Order: sequence, then C-alpha cells, then structure tokens
Amino acid sequence: MPMNRSRVDSMTDRVLIDELQTLVDPGKVLTDAGSLETYGKDWTKQFTPAPLAIVFPKTTEQVQAIVRWANERLVALVPSGGRTGLSAAAVAANGEVVVSFDYMNQVLDLNLTDRTAVCQPGVITRQLQALAEESGLYYPVDFASSGSSQIGGNIGTNAGGIKVIRYGMTRNWVAGLKVVTGKGDLLELNKDLIKNATGYDLRQLFIGAEGTLGFVVEATMRLDRAPKNLTAMVLGTSDFNSIMPVLHAFHGKLDLTAFEFFSDKSFARVMARGDVPSPFDTPCPFYVLLEFEATTDDLADQALATFEHCVEQGWVLDGVMSQSEQQLRNLWKLREYISETISHFTPYKNDISVTVSKVPEFLAEIDAIVAEHYPDFEVLWYGHIGDGNLHLNILKPEGLDKNEFFVKCARVNKWVFETVEKYNGSISAEHGVGMTKRDYLTYSRSPIEIEYMKALKAVFDPNGIMNPGKIFAV
Amino acid sequence: MPMNRSRVDSMTDRVLIDELQTLVDPGKVLTDAGSLETYGKDWTKQFTPAPLAIVFPKTTEQVQAIVRWANERLVALVPSGGRTGLSAAAVAANGEVVVSFDYMNQVLDLNLTDRTAVCQPGVITRQLQALAEESGLYYPVDFASSGSSQIGGNIGTNAGGIKVIRYGMTRNWVAGLKVVTGKGDLLELNKDLIKNATGYDLRQLFIGAEGTLGFVVEATMRLDRAPKNLTAMVLGTSDFNSIMPVLHAFHGKLDLTAFEFFSDKSFARVMARGDVPSPFDTPCPFYVLLEFEATTDDLADQALATFEHCVEQGWVLDGVMSQSEQQLRNLWKLREYISETISHFTPYKNDISVTVSKVPEFLAEIDAIVAEHYPDFEVLWYGHIGDGNLHLNILKPEGLDKNEFFVKCARVNKWVFETVEKYNGSISAEHGVGMTKRDYLTYSRSPIEIEYMKALKAVFDPNGIMNPGKIFAV
Repeated sequence: MPMNRSRVDSMTDRVLIDELQTLVDPGKVLTDAGSLETYGKDWTKQFTPAPLAIVFPKTTEQVQAIVRWANERLVALVPSGGRTGLSAAAVAANGEVVVSFDYMNQVLDLNLTDRTAVCQPGVITRQLQALAEESGLYYPVDFASSGSSQIGGNIGTNAGGIKVIRYGMTRNWVAGLKVVTGKGDLLELNKDLIKNATGYDLRQLFIGAEGTLGFVVEATMRLDRAPKNLTAMVLGTSDFNSIMPVLHAFHGKLDLTAFEFFSDKSFARVMARGDVPSPFDTPCPFYVLLEFEATTDDLADQALATFEHCVEQGWVLDGVMSQSEQQLRNLWKLREYISETISHFTPYKNDISVTVSKVPEFLAEIDAIVAEHYPDFEVLWYGHIGDGNLHLNILKPEGLDKNEFFVKCARVNKWVFETVEKYNGSISAEHGVGMTKRDYLTYSRSPIEIEYMKALKAVFDPNGIMNPGKIFAV
Repeated sequence: MPMNRSRVDSMTDRVLIDELQTLVDPGKVLTDAGSLETYGKDWTKQFTPAPLAIVFPKTTEQVQAIVRWANERLVALVPSGGRTGLSAAAVAANGEVVVSFDYMNQVLDLNLTDRTAVCQPGVITRQLQALAEESGLYYPVDFASSGSSQIGGNIGTNAGGIKVIRYGMTRNWVAGLKVVTGKGDLLELNKDLIKNATGYDLRQLFIGAEGTLGFVVEATMRLDRAPKNLTAMVLGTSDFNSIMPVLHAFHGKLDLTAFEFFSDKSFARVMARGDVPSPFDTPCPFYVLLEFEATTDDLADQALATFEHCVEQGWVLDGVMSQSEQQLRNLWKLREYISETISHFTPYKNDISVTVSKVPEFLAEIDAIVAEHYPDFEVLWYGHIGDGNLHLNILKPEGLDKNEFFVKCARVNKWVFETVEKYNGSISAEHGVGMTKRDYLTYSRSPIEIEYMKALKAVFDPNGIMNPGKIFAV
C-alpha cells in the first residue's frame, strides 16, 4: 500500500504538481521553501517538514478532485488546519501533499432557532466564538490556541480545553458533518438533527480521527446560550491531596464551568513574566482555578461558604474571587498563559488522563518516577484536573543539548505510560496520537482494538492515502 | 452468508440446542412455546416470533462462548433486553437464538467521585435511576418504558425520551463500554475516561447499532447531580404555529429540562381515562409541557413573566405551573400516559424528526398529506418538539381490519418519508430502524452511506450472525 512519495515511481514531482494545479484555482498550489516549511508542520518540533506541495482547495468539489487524484497517483495527503497540534498529526515529513483549508474559512449560515452555525473547516475557533457572542450565544470549546486553531482541526482531534467539565469535548458540539472519505465519496452525516436513530453514527468516527479516514469539508456546530456572570475563584491549596476534596466540595454546590489546577512552579513561571497580577501573597504548592455562573447572590454566597469550609478543613490556604470581568480575565491568565510562557523552555509535554477518582494516587506515582530518575529536571504540572486530565511538562535544563534532552524524556515516557496503563488511563487525553504517541498506542488501546481500527480505516481509505503514519505506523 | 436457521443444514435443531446448553448454566436455555413467544418479540406487532431457543448468559465469558459457537454453526443471534422496542430490532422471527440479558442485571459499582455506575446490560433503566437518586445523583435518560427497558437496549437504540433538550441522548451518558463483537472479541472501550484522544472512538459505533455489530456486556453510565426543584408548566396554545415562538421565548430565559407537546386529540384520550386531573378548562388545539429547575424565586418569576408575554402575544390561551411535586407528577401524566393510553387502539406509530426551525412547515405538510388521503383516520400528534422530534400516531378505526389498516398506513409511509427526505429529516428519531424502518432507510441515509455502514458491519461481524435483517436487509 503506497504511503508516501518515495513509493511513487515513474511520476516525477513536476508532473504531479502540474496535475495538482489543474484541480484547484490558479495560484493555489505552493511549492516554495517557506510555504513547505510553514505548512509542513504543527507546534511539535521533533520532525523536519518535507512536503511535496501545499494545495488550497476552495470548494468541496476541489477537495474531492484532490482525493480522487491522490488515489490514482497513490500520493499521500496531510490535512492542515491552524497547525497548532501537539502530536504531529498535521506534520508532512515524507513528501506528502498538504491540503490546507485556509481558503475554506467561511461561516455559511447561522440559525438562531436551531442555535447552529454551518462552518467551513478553515473557520478559526475564535471567529466562531465571536460570531456566537454577537448573537447572544456561545461556542464553549476553548483552549490556549483558539486564536489560530481551525474548526476542522478541532474536529479531527476532538479538541477539549478548559470548559470540558461543563460543556464536554468538541464531539458534543458537532450537529452534522460533511466529509470527503479517503475514497473520494462525499458523505452528509446526521444532517444537523438532534435525534436520528437510523443506523451507525458515522459522524462520530470522523471526530477525533486526525484526518486518517477523510477530510471534513463542512461542519454544523451547535451553540449554547451565553453564560451569565461568569465568576472565577483562584484558591491556593496546602498540598496536592487537598485538590480533590476541594473539587468535590464545590462540585456538589455549584455547576462548575471550569476546574483547573497548576503547580507552584507553573505559577512562578507566569509570575516571572511580570504582566500578570498575583492573586494573593500566600505561597502555596498548588493552585486551583474554578469558575461558575454567579446568576444569583445566593450562588455567590454558597461559593464563599464552600471556600470557608475548605479553609477550615485545612485544604485551602488562601483564595480570591473575581468581582468584575477584568478580574475574571486576570485570574484566567494565571492558567492560560502557562503553555505559551513555558514554550520558550523547550518543554517535553505529556497529556495524560485517568478517571477523576484515581487522580491523586496516579499523579503521586508519576511525580515520584520523574523525581527519582531526573532529579535535575524541572517538572511542571497543570491541567484540567476536573476532567482527570493532567499536563506533565518537563523543562529542558539550560545547559543540556536538545536532542539529548528528548532522548532522556523518551525514556521517561515508558515509565509514565506504564503507569497510565496500570491506572487504565489515556496516553493522550486531548492532544491526539499523531506521530508522537503512535508507538505508545498499545498502552491505551488493546492490540485487538487497534486491529479493528485499522480495518475501519481500510473501509474509508483502502489505498492508505489519508494522513498515513498518523495514529498507526505505515 | 448464512443468516438464519433455514440456512443451517446438516445440524438438527436438537443438536444445536444441546450444544448451546453446554455454554451456559444449567436451565439457562429455554425452548418452551411461552418463552419463545415472549422473548421472540418486542412491542411491535407486525412480526410473528419464531426463535429456535432463548439463552440466558450470566457472564461475559458465556456471551463470548455463545458468539463463538454461533460463528462456528452460522446461527443468527438476536439480543433481548426489556423488549420495549418499537422497531422490531429485538424480534426473532426466523429461527434465531435469542440472547437475553435478564440474568446480567447487576450494578457492579457506583463511584460518587466520578459520578458513574458500572452496569451489566440487563439493568433496568428505572433501577439505575433509583440507585442514582438514593445517592443524591440523577440518571437523566427517561421515557415511557423506563420501568422495563434495559440499559443494554437503551445503548443499542441510543434511547432518547423526554429530557433530551437538556441532557441529550443515551450516547452522552456512556462513559465506557465492554462489548463482545460479532467475531467474539471482547473490547473495553474508552475505560470510562472523560478525555481520551487515542484514535477512533469505537464506543460510539456500538451506541445505536441495534446489536448488529456485537453485544454490550458492561456499560459505565455517567450520572448527573440531582435536579433542583423541578417545576412544570402546561400551556394551551392557540394553534400549532404558536408552539415554536413559545419555545423560543422560554428557551431564551430558562434552562429547560423538557419541552414537549401534544395535540387536543392526544389530550382528550388521556382525559378519557378518568384518572388524570385536567390542568385547566380552556379547550386548546395544542398543549405544551415545559419543565425547568426553579432554583430561585427569580427564575419562577421569569417563567411567569414569559408566560404572560406569550398570552399577550396571543400564542397561549391558558396555562398552569406546578407548585408541588404532586402537581409536577400530575402534569407529566398528561404527556407520559399518551403512549400507553393509545396502545389499545392499535396505533400506527411514526417517529420522525427535523431540525427545530423546520418543524412548523414540516408538520403542516405531513398533517395535510394524512388528512387528504385518510380523512376518516384519527391522527394524534405528540412528542419532543424541543428536539424537533414528532410522534405521528394514526389510530385504527374500530370497524377496520388490522391488516387492512396496516396496509393503508404503509401507503402513508411513502408520502411521509418523502416529506422527511425533502426536509432533510430522520425517518426514525429515537425508535431505531430494526425491521420496521429498514426498507425506508434510503430516505434518511444515502446509498453510499449505507454501503459504508455495511462495510463496517462486515468488520465486526464478518459472518453476519449478529441480529441479521435489522437495519439492513439480509
């Protein structure tokens, strides 16, 4: 099954590019070095981009034409959205043709009765959020890269983020999908219906498939009512083990819209920026950011009473509650700026999850492993702890060579993932598998499951042209 | 591909039954006429039950043994839950072996931190609801047959019901699944995680698959916090076209937990029972039942103000709001008793949906078709209009022969489904396809989609032994 350019014999690159140009609008195939570099990668840094060309379809028909051509020529295709991925699922490192959705970026329809927006795949997440807001509605999937990530990519990775505890993943917000399968067929899946019990829900297969089954060419996204008087609390806890009782206490009283945590080291890195106000002076080993709709004074009172209960129990050392939108925004910066702030320290990122009840034991075990083997590495914890999702970040010591650092981290991987497996967790909670987690997939999915997944892929993509080498090895 | 008993040559029924008995506990294979009749059918009446035997596994291993044996002997298997289905998906009319989950009916674990319950497939929906309630939690999927339907069947049909507008379908509440595929493999899907981005979410394929891919042998169901001070309003509207503005008015102000409707004829049938109090005296052509959490006086006031607004607009003629749990229960009877009340009049049921914004135009068109062709038939409308889901019920005139009635109704089907197709709707919103909708599937799913569905089935069930003839023709 030919998978990449090296397997295409008899056709020269030039001929392929000439053919490709006939399938799209003039000027919509790029082969200059800058474009190949830019569109050939995502936010990961382990792979060297090396695509054959970048193609920019403007219509569903053009996407179909590209896929059919790729089947004839056995050329591998890689989808490209906002390229903010963290698993190298959108990296083209083997002479593939990158299919960018930058020119399919319109919201085609907004229906206020149905609370839906029909989006082309290249619509930026923030663009949809803003449009919803203008109409008094809300698109609740939100994360650090919302400003550049695209809806098609969100669907491909089933993006999660900071509001999952209340709103769930991207999956929950996809009312309907139009996809072009790896065979070039156009499928209109679910037709935006709330209720539709007419056989297998194929829509669900394409969500989180990382472009390995086909391309999303249109997505109808659900919108929610706008949240009312969002109010955040940042609490400093006495130790890690106090976080879950705090979650439990607040979860019982309020409908939380977020429950995030970060360690003192994560906090210190954001403080060192100098542009984020400190919430309070008491130093704490861990911090919690929680959010709820303070629709009544009564709810705000309950939040404060719960806070006081947590202080009395010795779980919480200090805390603050936002009294304005400005304060809300400032508190969120403490959490949201972490990822970008530490990106300058070449972090080795792991995105793991277990069920919420297992979090304390699991985190302690991972923490001990890393501390034992790499006492000189700075370890930062943060993440969506209300969903059981922890981001483990190891920062490169200044003197250490980048490659050596990654080799050492790869060694940690094995121990981390063995622990994930032991706790029945996920080696990738929300970043996807791509190429970075591909070789570790068996820690979260059984060999039989993987065989079934490969068989499903073969149904939609018999020639293996759709993002080969992602999720599974070629 | 052998599909039913008539294709099994050389083996006598007796030998098959003897073999089957070796796979389960003593006495757990039944072949008496009463059991064959009882376990061979669901709530539909079009098919004559004719299974070979009923088998009652008690463990996952026994289910695997049955499936492996069925593959060897090419015997068709039909899953049996609470047998409350309305599409003949659990009917065994061709010498199949029925696999009943009546003895796999335990809640194996309840985790209050994770808010999950690990259920065997035979757990009754109401049993799970009651268990959740005892723990201060809530299982929100609810419908007329909750008292006898089983969790495994709910998953097989992705059951919906009366709370979908707030809580979604069964799909939303399945944290993890253990399934035995048609090949006899045991898959543990998603491991109850909130976030898990490790390839295709196979769990989703089994939800709504009507047992055609495999059997659910364990399901971890999510629970929600208990709703607070649920309060219902029943409103009488001036005509059908007033219902959607009422929905829109309330939807903007309150987080609705239900928005149901029923026609005056449905209402009259329930009134005729004599055991349900009338909400008010004003006769109205249509009624709406809506529900919300009246957590504060302010919310109850907003509900009343919205009601007054609807009266001023001429949409609503009269209304009532529950002031106690007893009143809440009584108002719900107006809606919930319809299905059972009319079941004595041999109703021809259709369960169709469109997007909410298309409902008024769509219903008017269907109504006109039925009125034109069958002016002597009594047509009852009710359903989950807040989800775009309408139940069209045609009652058999007293003098008319049952078979003749069904033949006439089948003729309506074509016109109804053509209209469904025209409005991009679903021919089965929540009842599934089974055998009753099988031949109409193309009105909601394209031929290419159906080809992909069949190819997926072949991956999980290459010998076609799992509930053959359901969803697709054999």
